[in-house]
This record gives sequence, structure tokens and C-alpha cells, in this order.
Amino acid sequence: MDLRAFQAHIAATYGAKDAARGSAGTFMYLIEEVGELAEALREPGKHDLDGEFADCLAWLVSLAHLSGVDLSAATARKYPGFCQRCGATPCVCVSKP
Amino acid sequence: MDLRAFQAHIAATYGAKDAARGSAGTFMYLIEEVGELAEALREPGKHDLDGEFADCLAWLVSLAHLSGVDLSAATARKYPGFCQRCGATPCVCVSKP
Repeated sequence: MDLRAFQAHIAATYGAKDAARGSAGTFMYLIEEVGELAEALREPGKHDLDGEFADCLAWLVSLAHLSGVDLSAATARKYPGFCQRCGATPCVCVSKP
Repeated sequence: MDLRAFQAHIAATYGAKDAARGSAGTFMYLIEEVGELAEALREPGKHDLDGEFADCLAWLVSLAHLSGVDLSAATARKYPGFCQRCGATPCVCVSKP
């Protein structure tokens, strides 16, 4: 799936409602979905784990669009294909747990 | 950016560390980044808003991989190009705020 195309689709479908709701309210929806993801991670057999991941991405994309951020471009810039700190794949940074 | 390719890149770079840390610890990193996104949304001039969105996506993708979820496929299934409830683009559901 192309992430830029997905952002355009989400914006076309939900952008007007997101704009009317505003950034803080849309962030609250993202958090609601992140909470549902936590539930699904704890008990995947009782929840739609795939669907909860998808919902988190959809709300993150909604919020990015509302904030004027091209999530695809922003991610490609920050994650160029190797660890940004050690420069390696796999990452060999001595990191926190 | 192709989301499936991005998941494969994140898995190659960070998958071993994510697996060693486990699901709960990786979820905590996601939450840490969501908190930083909240800060950046409140004061975008003082933070790297694009970068915080990218970090949230990267940790969501890490967690999806660790959970055996193909985020690209899961999202394409749940968000087929129109609102799943009303069937329209733009969505015309009478929805909560």
C-alpha cells in the first residue's frame, strides 16, 4: 500500500470531519484507538488485532493531514533505510531496553 | 512510500531488538512517541512535528511486525477507499464529535 495515496484517501473521506473536529479532538480519537490496540495486544484472541493496528494508522494519518504533514515524506526522511544513529542494518546501537 | 517495504526495512533494522524487548516494552516506546507528538502538536514551532509523526509510525510498524501483523494488508482490508459505515467519500455518517 502506498502511504501517500492512503493519506489522500483518508483526507478525501474524513478530512472535512477531522477539520471540523480539530486537532485536539482528533488526537483523542487516536488515543482511543491506541487504547484498543493495548487491549488487543493483551488478548489478541478476543479482539481484531489487525483491525486495531489499522485504526491506529488511519487516525495517525488523519491527524498528520490535519497538521499539514505528509506522513510518507516525513517518514522517508527520518527513516532512510538504516539506523540513523549507528548507520547499520541491523541496528547495533547500545540502547536502552 | 510503500508501507509493506517500510515494515520490512524496520524489521530488518530493529526487529531483533524489538523481539528481545517484547511487546509490552515496545508498546511503551510507542506511547512515549505519542506523548512527544502531543507536545509537538501543542507547540509545533518548538518541536519537529514531521519527525514526531514519523516516529509514531515507525514504532507502530515495529509493534505490528512483532505481533505478526502486516500493517499494509490490515489497513487495506479495513480502509478500502470509502467510509466502511456509510459507503461514501466523503463520509456522510452522523457521527460523534
